[in-house]
Amino acid sequence: MNLTNIITLTTDFGTTDIFVGVMKGVILSINPDAKIIDITHDIEPQDVHAGAFLLSSAYRYFPPGTIHVGVIDPGVGSARRAIAVETERYYFVAPDNGLLSYVLCKEKVRSAVNLTNPKYFLPQISDTFHGRDIFAPVAAHISRGVSLNSLGEQITNIAQIPISTPDTSESEIIGHILYIDRFGNLITNISQELFESVKRGRNFIIFVKDRQIQRICRAYAESSVGELLGIFSSFGNLEIAINEGNAAETLEVKRGDAIKIRFQ
Amino acid sequence: MNLTNIITLTTDFGTTDIFVGVMKGVILSINPDAKIIDITHDIEPQDVHAGAFLLSSAYRYFPPGTIHVGVIDPGVGSARRAIAVETERYYFVAPDNGLLSYVLCKEKVRSAVNLTNPKYFLPQISDTFHGRDIFAPVAAHISRGVSLNSLGEQITNIAQIPISTPDTSESEIIGHILYIDRFGNLITNISQELFESVKRGRNFIIFVKDRQIQRICRAYAESSVGELLGIFSSFGNLEIAINEGNAAETLEVKRGDAIKIRFQ
Amino acid sequence: MNLTNIITLTTDFGTTDIFVGVMKGVILSINPDAKIIDITHDIEPQDVHAGAFLLSSAYRYFPPGTIHVGVIDPGVGSARRAIAVETERYYFVAPDNGLLSYVLCKEKVRSAVNLTNPKYFLPQISDTFHGRDIFAPVAAHISRGVSLNSLGEQITNIAQIPISTPDTSESEIIGHILYIDRFGNLITNISQELFESVKRGRNFIIFVKDRQIQRICRAYAESSVGELLGIFSSFGNLEIAINEGNAAETLEVKRGDAIKIRFQ
Repeated sequence: MNLTNIITLTTDFGTTDIFVGVMKGVILSINPDAKIIDITHDIEPQDVHAGAFLLSSAYRYFPPGTIHVGVIDPGVGSARRAIAVETERYYFVAPDNGLLSYVLCKEKVRSAVNLTNPKYFLPQISDTFHGRDIFAPVAAHISRGVSLNSLGEQITNIAQIPISTPDTSESEIIGHILYIDRFGNLITNISQELFESVKRGRNFIIFVKDRQIQRICRAYAESSVGELLGIFSSFGNLEIAINEGNAAETLEVKRGDAIKIRFQ
Repeated sequence: MNLTNIITLTTDFGTTDIFVGVMKGVILSINPDAKIIDITHDIEPQDVHAGAFLLSSAYRYFPPGTIHVGVIDPGVGSARRAIAVETERYYFVAPDNGLLSYVLCKEKVRSAVNLTNPKYFLPQISDTFHGRDIFAPVAAHISRGVSLNSLGEQITNIAQIPISTPDTSESEIIGHILYIDRFGNLITNISQELFESVKRGRNFIIFVKDRQIQRICRAYAESSVGELLGIFSSFGNLEIAINEGNAAETLEVKRGDAIKIRFQ
Repeated sequence: MNLTNIITLTTDFGTTDIFVGVMKGVILSINPDAKIIDITHDIEPQDVHAGAFLLSSAYRYFPPGTIHVGVIDPGVGSARRAIAVETERYYFVAPDNGLLSYVLCKEKVRSAVNLTNPKYFLPQISDTFHGRDIFAPVAAHISRGVSLNSLGEQITNIAQIPISTPDTSESEIIGHILYIDRFGNLITNISQELFESVKRGRNFIIFVKDRQIQRICRAYAESSVGELLGIFSSFGNLEIAINEGNAAETLEVKRGDAIKIRFQ
């Protein structure tokens, strides 16, 4: 894989404090040519599941060779491992807490290591901020050509969080809400591909809480203001939204809740 | 015009989700040397007017040849066009919904095209996220030297939103609130130049709602805490502010409301 | 000192408006190769003390030669000076209002100048936005090799804000809250070094408001949810936190409040 100088950051640090800036300083101290791109820093604190989903939705839009750093790390200072993973197209550096679960459904792992070589860390390691002390410097060293084998010993097991997949029968799909975005839109785990393969030209009803939706819009502009609608989002999954409204609040749903589609 | 590698982004996507990061990944996949600068992503969702004003206030501080991308795009997926415009000093890439209205009051258009050549888009075009699928890749291709003529056919009409200009008589200026910033300051469409040309050394009263202001401060530091003041903002227009307060909330005004100045 | 092209920004401008984007445009117009890094823009408006503390906590993670720009500037347009300071490792550009107070406890000044040479400013200087008109262009010129002596006359006095240092006796440390982060954690001015030097193996009680803490955790993961805990933060000072809670709100404390440690 060709290396790039591109390092992305996905964290729950927010941008009000200096944590993200400090990570960038550490990276540039090791590789002044690094090109650091923020994916987002506003994941809900310690929400590994949301981080895993968002990282998996964003990473593949970057050039092959990009180094993706994820830091949602409630276990910092505990025994959880820090890892680096090389897939066929990308590098990932993260705590070993499931943050790469969705990514690794899509990417084939070529190498994965437990980050144990302190030569590639900051000289002092705190128990509270491995983003600065471990993940940022390791990513910077990878961008300069350090191989994964230098960073620590190979591992074969990577921590996983439970990944919900839809249940499918001849006439039904039962999926779940994977993620709620800042507009209150409900992103489900039902892909357009799965939907079409079960639908086979039939009519359908989408059940969300006590509400029903009978069509899927192609674009928001096809619906009227206040309308509850289904749409295949830009990330390819079924999304439930209210035009200019907040579906999550209106329907009082939360991540993990079921979305059922019945075909007839 | 010399090209630069600088691409700016002005959107209403927020920074909580991954939309902006994804656009940057798309740009860097096409031009790894692009230098991407955020102007702001926190424009109120779908507020084309605010976006148009802010873009027009920021763009000219960038080096000539900069490519400015604006995505406030309530009509995404509808028939609205996507356009690229070359002026004497800059490039602009945006939906054709009026977002360039204020810019084009100031910049002379050399070329404008309807973006129709899919060669410069992502391979798949969604109906919900043209920032990723069209605007980001087109900007990246322009930064690599692709000419506007390659991107689509020339157009001569560009969508405009209504632009308010002050009414002026011998003894009065009646202007409007163009924009309210996050501190609640009221930015009007009354330029310092216009003000001085009508004033001609006379006294004046500024009327805002049921309040009156009789002097214009040179700097915030000239006023006292809680004082309602007029000031020529850093962008050259009359601004109504409350020192350490929120003028919009206190006066209960909104964008479009009138501001009258009487000279005597 | 070797120069870098790295310029950091620490301001209270927020990211909702275009101020930060405009500063970046000005910098790139002067030095297209500048690498601009945001430390934070979300310091409470006009809170020079918080800015001073955060800048002093972040700056040293950047490569030597980095140019740090700080703009928390309630006195813009008044007689306060604008200054540039060269220390043994870094450059700083800021209003002369105490914003560099904490930095200059740690860094040895080699040169400090009053920014008076308009050759290195924008052609027009507003009374409301020196971030754009003075600080950004001066930083960009420094990054291109302009010496401090060209920027203005040497000064020997730099404005200071009061810096609280802990009071220490044989059996007590009385410190203060320096900063409250966005999670409500209380960052004190009691360093781990000071704590250990007074403790000398004894037991201790930390008094915060009417609450007592009898141990210091090594990592958040050592405490239970809702627990009030002491921890040495990633920046080396004692921090009082509530695991998954907001210590500042729960304890009803504010910056400057006392934190007492009694050893026995």
